[in-house]
Amino acid sequence: MSEVLVVGSLAYDSVRTPSGKADKSLGGSANYFSVAASLFAKVRVVGVVGEDYLDSDKKILLDRNVDLKGMQTVKGETFHWEGSYEKSLSDAITLKTELNVFAAFNPELPESYKDSRFVFLANIDPVLQLQVLSQAKEPLFVGMDTMNFWIDSKQKDLISVLKKVDIVFMNETEAKMLTQTRNPVTAVKRVAEMGPQYVVVKRGEYGSTLYSKTDGFFQVPALPIEDVIDPTGAGDSFAGGFFGLLASQCTARPTWIDLKRAVLAGTVLSSQTIQDFSLKALLRVDHINYENHLTQLKATISI
Amino acid sequence: MSEVLVVGSLAYDSVRTPSGKADKSLGGSANYFSVAASLFAKVRVVGVVGEDYLDSDKKILLDRNVDLKGMQTVKGETFHWEGSYEKSLSDAITLKTELNVFAAFNPELPESYKDSRFVFLANIDPVLQLQVLSQAKEPLFVGMDTMNFWIDSKQKDLISVLKKVDIVFMNETEAKMLTQTRNPVTAVKRVAEMGPQYVVVKRGEYGSTLYSKTDGFFQVPALPIEDVIDPTGAGDSFAGGFFGLLASQCTARPTWIDLKRAVLAGTVLSSQTIQDFSLKALLRVDHINYENHLTQLKATISI
Repeated sequence: MSEVLVVGSLAYDSVRTPSGKADKSLGGSANYFSVAASLFAKVRVVGVVGEDYLDSDKKILLDRNVDLKGMQTVKGETFHWEGSYEKSLSDAITLKTELNVFAAFNPELPESYKDSRFVFLANIDPVLQLQVLSQAKEPLFVGMDTMNFWIDSKQKDLISVLKKVDIVFMNETEAKMLTQTRNPVTAVKRVAEMGPQYVVVKRGEYGSTLYSKTDGFFQVPALPIEDVIDPTGAGDSFAGGFFGLLASQCTARPTWIDLKRAVLAGTVLSSQTIQDFSLKALLRVDHINYENHLTQLKATISI
Repeated sequence: MSEVLVVGSLAYDSVRTPSGKADKSLGGSANYFSVAASLFAKVRVVGVVGEDYLDSDKKILLDRNVDLKGMQTVKGETFHWEGSYEKSLSDAITLKTELNVFAAFNPELPESYKDSRFVFLANIDPVLQLQVLSQAKEPLFVGMDTMNFWIDSKQKDLISVLKKVDIVFMNETEAKMLTQTRNPVTAVKRVAEMGPQYVVVKRGEYGSTLYSKTDGFFQVPALPIEDVIDPTGAGDSFAGGFFGLLASQCTARPTWIDLKRAVLAGTVLSSQTIQDFSLKALLRVDHINYENHLTQLKATISI
């Protein structure tokens, strides 16, 4: 088994959806990613929290054997995001972003993290993504996520990160935006031309597509879910399941088959996250119900 | 091999898309369905055309061994639809609907059609769908399509047809509209509760989902296509491929495996239709390139 290093946000989210609301509940890309990935592998977190961050929230990760040596606690308040899915479960409307301690985040890798074989740069400033990557010694496989905000405001830096990663995870609309094309197939190919060997396009309720420059497309629909409560963290849970499975199975560079299996793991975990607020549903996933959901997913897509 | 009977529109379409436009070119659900289905099976058409309908357009079906005994030619002009996909390739905006001879369409089955084992009621007035169905003697498997217009204006009749068919094909937005629910999974289950054993939900560029009351879900993404020229007829080509394959393979009621194979056939044929205006791309599909596209589809979805 290899280790997965993740750098991302540790946050408190206030979310409204058609099912209700959750105020200042645990969130952030690094939390969703770590909980998902830790089902399969040893996870190392790089991030920053304020003095208000609860010990019980740190304990959630510690209980899953996640290494928190890279989690800095600094004076001030934890990153707070407020959003609404009341209009559409497919698109969050951001109501407030309070960066707080995240504004001065200066990610540093503890010595013991530097040999991490798998590295995931969650959706943060591409300048910080580069800073983290430059501290890692010869990682085997590096992934990144990004969002429309960085495509708009820091595209040059974003393109620099794209050149250095093996795989990028993007929403379909973001892939179209970055490549300025309407066709999603053309978009994914153009993203790959910018650097990464592999691209995962996240299509929300329609599932995801993995593209490889050499192996073409692998498309997986989402699990059919009737009770979508809160879509927050679905993408990070996907990436966490994806990287966690890879790290648990690969000591060499992942093969196409490894990556296809990782897409299935990501699909299962993201489908669980959306069934409750915050990390609640994701935390209920254990090895037994993971295997059950995986079997169910396979049944809906096996030809 | 069994025969497939289809009742639907035979039309001239004027279509504008981001790729260009086609004026009064061959269209209509029964044409798309018949061309697709005739790749696999013997097709019988019930429909009406005006005196302006070209012999060369009839010949297209005759050359594919389609039985036109049920095609009435009456005084007046052929049904003409004018639409635009300039804003979005996912949704047609109807600019003009000239029913012409279709307004007084009174579908009658020739004697030789009445023993048809597979029957498809394409998207026409549900009252006419019922009229056709009442003339068929013990069909093995009956399918129907519909659209938002009939859900709005003739919902009671539509529900009567739903009770009598084995499978219904609907767009995802139409399934939500009919069942008044936002969740697509709940929507498909509620459609099935209205009568049909099987429901196919068409999701455009995201593919389709087959639902069975006893076997659950089977989800198939679309083939990744870069050159989407004109989406008109994609749904009818899907249904045609689906029913054509069933008719070619089944002498008894189709099994779950038969239906899954039929979804793949429908997926391949709809993906070809959209790559040119009118029926042009669909007509270029022969057994060899069909098998190639099927292999390609399977490669993108095989786990």
